Amino acid sequence: MGVVVPLKTAREVQASLEPLIGLVKDDMAGVNRIILDKAKSDVELIPELARHLIDSGGKRLRPMLTIAAAKMCGYKGEEHVRLAASVEFMHTATLLHDDVVDESDLRRGKQSARILWGNEASVLVGDFLLGQAFKMMVDVGSLDALRVLSNAAAVIAEGEVMQLVASKNTDTTEDEYLAVIDAKTAALFAAAGEVGAIVAERPRPEHAALRSYGKNLGIAFQLVDDALDYSGEQAKLGKSVGDDFREGKITLPVVLSYRRGSAEDRRFWNRALQEGDIGADDLERAISLMEKHGAIADTIDRARHYGAIANDALAIFPETNYKAALRDAIAFCIARVY
Amino acid sequence: MGVVVPLKTAREVQASLEPLIGLVKDDMAGVNRIILDKAKSDVELIPELARHLIDSGGKRLRPMLTIAAAKMCGYKGEEHVRLAASVEFMHTATLLHDDVVDESDLRRGKQSARILWGNEASVLVGDFLLGQAFKMMVDVGSLDALRVLSNAAAVIAEGEVMQLVASKNTDTTEDEYLAVIDAKTAALFAAAGEVGAIVAERPRPEHAALRSYGKNLGIAFQLVDDALDYSGEQAKLGKSVGDDFREGKITLPVVLSYRRGSAEDRRFWNRALQEGDIGADDLERAISLMEKHGAIADTIDRARHYGAIANDALAIFPETNYKAALRDAIAFCIARVY
Repeated sequence: MGVVVPLKTAREVQASLEPLIGLVKDDMAGVNRIILDKAKSDVELIPELARHLIDSGGKRLRPMLTIAAAKMCGYKGEEHVRLAASVEFMHTATLLHDDVVDESDLRRGKQSARILWGNEASVLVGDFLLGQAFKMMVDVGSLDALRVLSNAAAVIAEGEVMQLVASKNTDTTEDEYLAVIDAKTAALFAAAGEVGAIVAERPRPEHAALRSYGKNLGIAFQLVDDALDYSGEQAKLGKSVGDDFREGKITLPVVLSYRRGSAEDRRFWNRALQEGDIGADDLERAISLMEKHGAIADTIDRARHYGAIANDALAIFPETNYKAALRDAIAFCIARVY
Repeated sequence: MGVVVPLKTAREVQASLEPLIGLVKDDMAGVNRIILDKAKSDVELIPELARHLIDSGGKRLRPMLTIAAAKMCGYKGEEHVRLAASVEFMHTATLLHDDVVDESDLRRGKQSARILWGNEASVLVGDFLLGQAFKMMVDVGSLDALRVLSNAAAVIAEGEVMQLVASKNTDTTEDEYLAVIDAKTAALFAAAGEVGAIVAERPRPEHAALRSYGKNLGIAFQLVDDALDYSGEQAKLGKSVGDDFREGKITLPVVLSYRRGSAEDRRFWNRALQEGDIGADDLERAISLMEKHGAIADTIDRARHYGAIANDALAIFPETNYKAALRDAIAFCIARVY
């Protein structure tokens, strides 16, 4: 487990995370140990709240990306584990602040931290985890990795502000929407991939390739997430269908349905999302408008487009089991919707 | 201006910031330029909100500390200006998140950002500024400075959580209170001083000396702030008297009055601060209890104690105009109350 195996030719793609999970299992156990250790504090509320998130069973896709990227690049050291833990802490801090901003009551099917401990604690524990993330990066000692991750931190926050400003605005274009998810979601995926090549001290083109892989995987991932929010499959993930709709979030399925819709359809979207005036049958109506205009199918189609770019970004690396697993991860992210 | 002038003997101390302001004026102009530049973003809300804080006329004590510390250490380069700007951004990010946590309506006599733009924007723009701070530190390229400042970021957040947990708890001891302000206020002052010695590449004892100076100045500064909140002088600073009282904050004047008071006094403090049941005359009663028990005078006395430690921490440095100005800053912080 965790050994780079050269493959003669590219093996067939599986829409599964299992190959990736299997390869990074040992290193991810190290990531988990670091996460538990660095969430410690004499102030009891901090580990308590941090554990709530840590135990809530996210896929840990971002740190797995860092581990697999470093290994695919032939890295033999141990620092990729600390970088991966930093990436996950940055993500966790973002989730905590996100829930406050979105006033979310649920996160991964459990009550969100802000409901259990209040907005104040969520803001501050998020800040603490971000501080711990930077401390770990400093311990790794790579200024290049620090540059990439601190840049991601600023870009993510910028993306969240963008989303806040665009919120409830049904005039949002597809390009504007893409700029938001590029910043708020794809930036951390991109950084998670890139630091794998950095810690392995590989040449620039490999940094860029893993950055591109991460970025496009991140966009595909977010687009599918947006589609899932209007699909019955959502319930399987412990989320409820229509959360984005109730929060007035403008996502690609909405952007497409609004643009392709009639004047009456647009009045409906404006009432529901801009004015927040949502009746009992409105989610159903939204979903049927999306079906009518092929908005969900086309959102997935767009996701496939970015997945293809991510796939091609991997081309410069030799065929190994890690590369095959990273390819499978793209297919998995897209296939989640069915 | 801005030149290290050796003094034959220590000159007399003035309780004034003017000597410090005069010496760091040119470098602080550089800090301001960087701050305005790094608060830029295509997302208009970010520079708008950041400018609100930047223009609101804080003293900029923390970045001045970094500049003066570096200069006193004989530093000739330009990187101290970027480090000072990072320190101010970290402080600004903390203020934004603090206001959300405390539900403050005013900051330096103006409406707080969260009132003007909402809690969401305050959380996210704080995150953005923190990200920019780390980017600037990475540009400076000193892992030692990064270590000190990222550690401060985690400790500050930890201190804020401590304060949140201790909030409204009249049983708080003086030691517990000191642990809170050591983390939430003194940690950044300590880091601001220490990175001055680090960027000047001075030996470890000078790092430690400037760290100690900053830490103890920070504690003295916070204690005097706490005393000011119950003093008529507060109004001159654009703040209103009794903000801490109305927010149920446990500060040293309260800790001392509660411990020294009668059973009836304690019932009063519990009603007002724990239960938040505050009548029209209660602030006046709180102030008169503080006077009766010498709580304000003793808070200032404690501040003087930490000021003396800060003063002695400077002893290892030769007598220069910078050292004299840093000494004056201690006296200024303490004398603010009169």
